[in-house]
Amino acid sequence: MRIAEIGEFGLIERIASRLPKPGEGVVAGIGDDAAVLRASGDKYLLTSCDIQVEGVHFLRDRISPQQLGFKAVSIKVSDIAAMGGLPRYLTISLILPNETAVEYVDDLYEGIQQACELYGTEVVGGNMARSLAGVIVDVFLVGEVEKERVLLRSGARVGDALLVTGHLGESAAGLALLLNPEATCAEAHRQRVLAAHLTPRARLQEGRAIAQSGLATAMLDVSDGTASDTGHICEMSHVGARLWAARLPISEATQAVAQATGGEARQWALQGGEDYELLLTAPAQWAHELAGLVQRQTGTGVTVIGEIVPAADGITLSQADGTQVPLDKGGWNHFAQSTDHCRL
Amino acid sequence: MRIAEIGEFGLIERIASRLPKPGEGVVAGIGDDAAVLRASGDKYLLTSCDIQVEGVHFLRDRISPQQLGFKAVSIKVSDIAAMGGLPRYLTISLILPNETAVEYVDDLYEGIQQACELYGTEVVGGNMARSLAGVIVDVFLVGEVEKERVLLRSGARVGDALLVTGHLGESAAGLALLLNPEATCAEAHRQRVLAAHLTPRARLQEGRAIAQSGLATAMLDVSDGTASDTGHICEMSHVGARLWAARLPISEATQAVAQATGGEARQWALQGGEDYELLLTAPAQWAHELAGLVQRQTGTGVTVIGEIVPAADGITLSQADGTQVPLDKGGWNHFAQSTDHCRL
Repeated sequence: MRIAEIGEFGLIERIASRLPKPGEGVVAGIGDDAAVLRASGDKYLLTSCDIQVEGVHFLRDRISPQQLGFKAVSIKVSDIAAMGGLPRYLTISLILPNETAVEYVDDLYEGIQQACELYGTEVVGGNMARSLAGVIVDVFLVGEVEKERVLLRSGARVGDALLVTGHLGESAAGLALLLNPEATCAEAHRQRVLAAHLTPRARLQEGRAIAQSGLATAMLDVSDGTASDTGHICEMSHVGARLWAARLPISEATQAVAQATGGEARQWALQGGEDYELLLTAPAQWAHELAGLVQRQTGTGVTVIGEIVPAADGITLSQADGTQVPLDKGGWNHFAQSTDHCRL
Repeated sequence: MRIAEIGEFGLIERIASRLPKPGEGVVAGIGDDAAVLRASGDKYLLTSCDIQVEGVHFLRDRISPQQLGFKAVSIKVSDIAAMGGLPRYLTISLILPNETAVEYVDDLYEGIQQACELYGTEVVGGNMARSLAGVIVDVFLVGEVEKERVLLRSGARVGDALLVTGHLGESAAGLALLLNPEATCAEAHRQRVLAAHLTPRARLQEGRAIAQSGLATAMLDVSDGTASDTGHICEMSHVGARLWAARLPISEATQAVAQATGGEARQWALQGGEDYELLLTAPAQWAHELAGLVQRQTGTGVTVIGEIVPAADGITLSQADGTQVPLDKGGWNHFAQSTDHCRL
């Protein structure tokens, strides 16, 4: 059997099922945004890694090396933010073709450095190797979080509200513009969605505010797509979810780009992925207080987009006309044939 | 300028020189076997990563997936051992072609798991992505070490003895056998050098014994080659070194394989690399006590192979006839054209 047949999640599940039970030091291992680990300190360690492969995750002529470096770090900080933690130390593996220009690597590190400054983290090591096909960047991040404040995917309870920071679908809108360069829309909209796709910002302050509030029950970041990521929370928490289509926070820019490119803004919001917004649950009675608190502390809006229901009810989308449709997980699956295209 | 022109070490130096000064949390960053980091605990965190690229570091038809998994973990544990630390948590990135057999991944993880059991560490997370050319394994390891026991590369002092655990050149002998399958030698010798190359053991207990003794001044593991790795200690410690050719610990098996394949055992010992022995320095008056202590505690021999001299004297090899020759760093440089061959 080839890995393309079981897909990324199938392969991860298969590997995880064959590993021994996690030891005492592992609070949360495979299956969350970051591993949560006991070490000698009074905080939990958080570790997470992510790979960017040329021709799979990005095309070298569509994203500059600065943007790629910035994005690779942001993605990792986003995972630490999704645990309620603070990023500390970055380790970076570069796998590069021999003919890579030194200036390309310089620029890549400039982007990495800009992100480090923004998030208060730093590069402490790395490794380099020769690639036989394309540039590959693998970023490892170690963070820390107060033990009583860590937010896992597994804490959602029936009756909780489902909330999300910022806007959904902007990254997919940016991708659509890159793939349809002839499409025309207002410059401000173009800039906004391209930035969302090429240089996403991790919701670090927001994640800290949410974790410190003590009001949230589960959290992750929207990397695979809202539908798929809601599925991750549901699976780990043994619950279902109902999303309200009309409440999905979709920006004017995303709507405009959808119109210009013939795309569907709602589909982008649900399945586009790479938004790096925080998706979280909180008891319904605290949801609006939590949203207000984050807005005041960080300036970022937080929207209630659904509710947690019993697992038997599955994951559904309530549409404006009152009908409910099962929500296809969709999302990004690195090995599946159907998604055998590039992200930028 | 292409990266092939400045080489791996040149590129690392260039990147390191452009990064801001390490922050307060970084005890040792780029340039040692592992980064040494302050976190909330009373020990230092150690982090290190290493990449194995098919066609660059290994050939898929010469090393089984179990061996590859075992080796990838051993190499990382070796770096933590070289700091005097204990490995804690592994994170593994797999970059795999779509057509990879699921069983290949199963077997890879079996080897990873065998190594985890041997070294008392565990896999806590990872990431997968699609590769456009070959299997790539990137292993990230977090360890810990008591603050007063960490051993850096930078602690060697003029007058120190230079010591090494075990034997040198066996991994290169194993590689020579793999590249010359028609060569004949005693089966025991064949087994020994192949194991050294395909399933090296990290000197974890030895590293702990050396660090706990408090007698050593600097340490690293022999990955690039004894000559090159001695150069790393000298560079970081601002000293030179004189190695004694007659003292290099070369096993009977390595000698036999050199004879069978037309190779040079001494060259393998000095420049072969991938031995994963520990190379260390200690005040000359304590060197034999330290060697005896490690031998008693772990059963592994430790040999005095040279001495630390002033930087101005460079790095030289004293030959049996009394002549001294400058020691070419040699070693493994991932991007240099001259070493554009495969390791297995």
